[in-house]
Amino acid sequence: MAGSRIGEYFAVTNFGESHGPAIGCVIDGCPPGMELSAEDIQKQLDRRRPGQSRHVTQRKESDTVEILSGLYKGVTTGTPIALLIRNEDQRSKDYSAIENVFRPAHADYTYYRKFGIRDPRGGGRSSARLTAPTVAAGAVARKWLEKNLGIQIRACLTNLGGIPLAIKDWSAVDENPFFTADPQKVPELEAFMDALRKSGDSAGSEVYAEALGAPAGLGDPIYRRLDACLAYAFMGLNAVKGVSIGDGFDVIGARGTENADQMNTRWENDFGSNHAGGILGGISNGQPITARIAIKPTPSVRTELDSMTVDGENVRVSTKGRHDPCVGIRAAPIIEALFALVLMDQVLAQRGQCGRIG
Amino acid sequence: MAGSRIGEYFAVTNFGESHGPAIGCVIDGCPPGMELSAEDIQKQLDRRRPGQSRHVTQRKESDTVEILSGLYKGVTTGTPIALLIRNEDQRSKDYSAIENVFRPAHADYTYYRKFGIRDPRGGGRSSARLTAPTVAAGAVARKWLEKNLGIQIRACLTNLGGIPLAIKDWSAVDENPFFTADPQKVPELEAFMDALRKSGDSAGSEVYAEALGAPAGLGDPIYRRLDACLAYAFMGLNAVKGVSIGDGFDVIGARGTENADQMNTRWENDFGSNHAGGILGGISNGQPITARIAIKPTPSVRTELDSMTVDGENVRVSTKGRHDPCVGIRAAPIIEALFALVLMDQVLAQRGQCGRIG
Amino acid sequence: MAGSRIGEYFAVTNFGESHGPAIGCVIDGCPPGMELSAEDIQKQLDRRRPGQSRHVTQRKESDTVEILSGLYKGVTTGTPIALLIRNEDQRSKDYSAIENVFRPAHADYTYYRKFGIRDPRGGGRSSARLTAPTVAAGAVARKWLEKNLGIQIRACLTNLGGIPLAIKDWSAVDENPFFTADPQKVPELEAFMDALRKSGDSAGSEVYAEALGAPAGLGDPIYRRLDACLAYAFMGLNAVKGVSIGDGFDVIGARGTENADQMNTRWENDFGSNHAGGILGGISNGQPITARIAIKPTPSVRTELDSMTVDGENVRVSTKGRHDPCVGIRAAPIIEALFALVLMDQVLAQRGQCGRIG
Amino acid sequence: MAGSRIGEYFAVTNFGESHGPAIGCVIDGCPPGMELSAEDIQKQLDRRRPGQSRHVTQRKESDTVEILSGLYKGVTTGTPIALLIRNEDQRSKDYSAIENVFRPAHADYTYYRKFGIRDPRGGGRSSARLTAPTVAAGAVARKWLEKNLGIQIRACLTNLGGIPLAIKDWSAVDENPFFTADPQKVPELEAFMDALRKSGDSAGSEVYAEALGAPAGLGDPIYRRLDACLAYAFMGLNAVKGVSIGDGFDVIGARGTENADQMNTRWENDFGSNHAGGILGGISNGQPITARIAIKPTPSVRTELDSMTVDGENVRVSTKGRHDPCVGIRAAPIIEALFALVLMDQVLAQRGQCGRIG
Repeated sequence: MAGSRIGEYFAVTNFGESHGPAIGCVIDGCPPGMELSAEDIQKQLDRRRPGQSRHVTQRKESDTVEILSGLYKGVTTGTPIALLIRNEDQRSKDYSAIENVFRPAHADYTYYRKFGIRDPRGGGRSSARLTAPTVAAGAVARKWLEKNLGIQIRACLTNLGGIPLAIKDWSAVDENPFFTADPQKVPELEAFMDALRKSGDSAGSEVYAEALGAPAGLGDPIYRRLDACLAYAFMGLNAVKGVSIGDGFDVIGARGTENADQMNTRWENDFGSNHAGGILGGISNGQPITARIAIKPTPSVRTELDSMTVDGENVRVSTKGRHDPCVGIRAAPIIEALFALVLMDQVLAQRGQCGRIG
Repeated sequence: MAGSRIGEYFAVTNFGESHGPAIGCVIDGCPPGMELSAEDIQKQLDRRRPGQSRHVTQRKESDTVEILSGLYKGVTTGTPIALLIRNEDQRSKDYSAIENVFRPAHADYTYYRKFGIRDPRGGGRSSARLTAPTVAAGAVARKWLEKNLGIQIRACLTNLGGIPLAIKDWSAVDENPFFTADPQKVPELEAFMDALRKSGDSAGSEVYAEALGAPAGLGDPIYRRLDACLAYAFMGLNAVKGVSIGDGFDVIGARGTENADQMNTRWENDFGSNHAGGILGGISNGQPITARIAIKPTPSVRTELDSMTVDGENVRVSTKGRHDPCVGIRAAPIIEALFALVLMDQVLAQRGQCGRIG
Repeated sequence: MAGSRIGEYFAVTNFGESHGPAIGCVIDGCPPGMELSAEDIQKQLDRRRPGQSRHVTQRKESDTVEILSGLYKGVTTGTPIALLIRNEDQRSKDYSAIENVFRPAHADYTYYRKFGIRDPRGGGRSSARLTAPTVAAGAVARKWLEKNLGIQIRACLTNLGGIPLAIKDWSAVDENPFFTADPQKVPELEAFMDALRKSGDSAGSEVYAEALGAPAGLGDPIYRRLDACLAYAFMGLNAVKGVSIGDGFDVIGARGTENADQMNTRWENDFGSNHAGGILGGISNGQPITARIAIKPTPSVRTELDSMTVDGENVRVSTKGRHDPCVGIRAAPIIEALFALVLMDQVLAQRGQCGRIG
Repeated sequence: MAGSRIGEYFAVTNFGESHGPAIGCVIDGCPPGMELSAEDIQKQLDRRRPGQSRHVTQRKESDTVEILSGLYKGVTTGTPIALLIRNEDQRSKDYSAIENVFRPAHADYTYYRKFGIRDPRGGGRSSARLTAPTVAAGAVARKWLEKNLGIQIRACLTNLGGIPLAIKDWSAVDENPFFTADPQKVPELEAFMDALRKSGDSAGSEVYAEALGAPAGLGDPIYRRLDACLAYAFMGLNAVKGVSIGDGFDVIGARGTENADQMNTRWENDFGSNHAGGILGGISNGQPITARIAIKPTPSVRTELDSMTVDGENVRVSTKGRHDPCVGIRAAPIIEALFALVLMDQVLAQRGQCGRIG
């Protein structure tokens, strides 16, 4: 079915494969009247772009975005905004060696089982490269949210391979190759990554994300709740295996008296705490909306592992070529983009049904 | 917007409020030709029904389902199946006392902020009572999945208020009031719950769920992935704050070589482990699909907490009346139902696009 | 698939069969804050109700609607509004005689071919009885449109079996059994219908419908245009074979200079004519929105016709039992309801994307 | 909202403006395993391409399509197929003269009222140029339908400006510039068009379309019926003001005994006539599916007409520049494409719910 669309009002349809001619997306439903330039989008794409440090994939892509439609004199017209990114560093090598081999823990096997055919070139459609159009669309949403509602969205790495990273300094996040807000830990992370690369292994990670300034009232129970939509978006990101809102899995051992966010006018936003992560009953309450995302180690490792061929033969496979030893490192801008897409969709939904925001 | 529908192909629209005349749902898209009776549905509703032990809400509802449409001579015709459950134990008391008070950590505040109006009777639309129609619809889906594809879905409580519960004996799950597969722990759980009720507090919990026998090939990347849809469904359930697939948050500290599920024909289903929880690249791989769900303590506690009125006055509020001190206790059948709805939708999607299952 | 829903924002899901226990619908997405009573809906249902003259089916149904959800103290809360109508005059006769026979020109054959099973009782799901929930949902939409935007929707019969009916007096429409605005023709229509019934035949008809006061700006090109959505709704009504907007099929022979609706401030609504029927480029222009709908003779005739059985045997079939010899007679209130549903959906869509109406 | 998508299973999202950098579409949900080349698509685009005779717009566009994604080794993979067509003949003239003027009977006014902004260059988004991506997507659908189900779709002009055109010879349709199956009339049509152009006026037209070989069982009552979806698609095409199925508006004066398509095994497809146009109760019956589409004269005329500016000033406007004096001339391939898109979507829907076709 048509699973490459996210959002109902601010509907983004993603297309492309890792080594095809181009990737991109179409945004259908963007409100008219907003100034928008390729630079607005490029700025976010550049944050996600590969090859910016030795700790990520060395694929060389400029990820230059072209806006194909939806603007007149630099302003959105309310019509679909198509965004195009040409692939530049598709290696025209012979893929026949891996064409019939399933790389273990990759999506090779499942794409084949689903479709009966798969594009083996760099993972084809299952490549993390397809997060670039998501980031591009998210850049449009976040600009609108920031300009019209003052919403700020941000994310940072909070754990790399078991090393916990504090949230000390948000201004540091874009100043280091790990998107961490714990800049003193950068040398430790660099050493960890260097050793990891050397070992040919890969590592998991955790990202924390939050939206500040989101109005109360976003979310459409009983199913299309704000938390459900965030979980959908985040869990749908490559390599993500867990999503939590607010206190997340810590609520299991908590008591109601301590988990309840009490209300009183003496507190900012009227709430004395934020265990709920800004969402009650699936609807935003005006507090910061907070989430944590668990990202598995990329299955691309140089160590040989057991696997199979299309024809059911047992083989040993190791992943050569360019890849991220920790896909979570570049995840922060992608998660911010998904966050923006979800909020944008809910803002338009809320305006449609209730004629108000918040 | 229209947020009370789940599923695109097997589309379920839920309606009702806790103390309105009735609750129910309409299933649009059920395949024709399946035998279906009210008993098939009632069986699952009875598992979720309140008042079955002293550890859950004492509200008395028979939750009797009536099938209003979609059957001819006991067989589904492919047309919408409407399911109706009359509310029986709405207390016709005067709600004016709490009409203008937001119960802390409840959805009272957010519904009011979203809609500018809310039904205060028993939580109105935000009540967990609305999970009954979900269970009813899920019963239809799971019957189809079991009959046509041999899929088995099951869930059990794995943590209650900090007490870990092992998965030792699935046959015990329906034989104790806690849906635990660790029957030796039942006395401890009973003592815990008795003390909890006495203290007027509430507790969090965790549920584990799995689907056995699901074919490979379910899931629609890049957004409408199977894991994304499961996360959407589970996170959208009342009180859920975290969802994970497979190893979940444990992947953060894992290495790629250990997290990868290697493949070899010597293993059942061809896989040697199941860290991925049966989903690779958002598509099922034929292994058991596994998930964990973190459920917060219900905010309904007898202890007084700070809160506010609609008019912004500070008040102290405690929750009287009937409620579940641990909403996770009755969550297993609901989560199973959501699991079934997600799988069913993906099965029909897969059959539509690819003309095959698995 | 899920084809029993109309609308995306004001989403109405219809259920039921002609001779099942009940029919009804769920409205998901209704704006909060509107006073609504069963009487508001009943008023429209009563206009469509069978058995009100000798010229329509004699089935006796009170079509009493029950509102199951979505209201608090008589005001919409923004949550789903479920509407239930119990079937009362299902005749519990033996249907085995017609169970395996396809009535010619009915949907019996196609339902069977689609689903492999069909409910033969009174046409099952394909019965025009299922327009009652549409009328009920439309009553909610039209109340909102009238109250909030001053939109008036009305329809009348403009042709009955070849007898053209002028639009002379809208106030007469609800005062005669034919919904004609040409009251002098009523005796001729009565004579025509009496003769038609006597002959055992049935007749076609045409309905004209218009919306007054709809704001400019409704419609979502390039596919989900206002005219496209109207055509979808009207063509989807039982027995409809043609839909036109504005001048409709007369445009075929027209010239651009005469068909163009010129604009000048001296004219009301700024337009000097309304060949376009109030829609340009798929978007409303603030003029009356006008449509014509062609309705075929009901295939239920007493004359014997050639047909087949499920097993491919040739048979002769005549339709006994109760039916409308001209289904168009009762179509006006249904078409008004569909008109309201389409406009309502577009109003919420417009408010969502553009934050304004008109 | 997101109105630029057609289809739910075979979902096509259209983007672009007449004078922007590019137009195109993304097809989400195409079944895997079909051979597809740019030539397959180009062939259909070439039939619609402007400038092929003196009777249509002289804009010079090669309409060369590039397939950006969704193929591997020339075979569809089940992932989104993005199609790109660069605009080549955007005239970089100064549009400021018409920027604030609404061309009468064009969509200028309504786009402005909807969005508060419009792209005046060549009609922007409302240009018939945007039918090219529709044709491209339709080419993919029709190839699949033809290859897998043997469905043939064809359309021809049946009236040009009041001149009726018979359906005598389908093989002639692609051999004359008018897509008429009445080749003897070509000289008359040429003379008519020459005079029309000379007069500066424009003319209406009618197109007939049919699908042969479509299986019984397509269509999703009660709203998403096959006829409703065809009406939606056709009425949503630029300049269309009327759509009919089968006998269409002729049913108004017909009797049930004559309008009924009787069934008997002695007839091909079991039916003795096809007044219903192949659709009963909203579901295909296996007969040819037939439709007629009324197309208004383009509002682009050289004659001066009354109109207004954005600021409410009265002006006289005539349309200079390139345009089609009869937009219906090039409509046949577009209508065929829309026909294919609707059928394709219903085929996948049917396969999803019922697991069978027909």
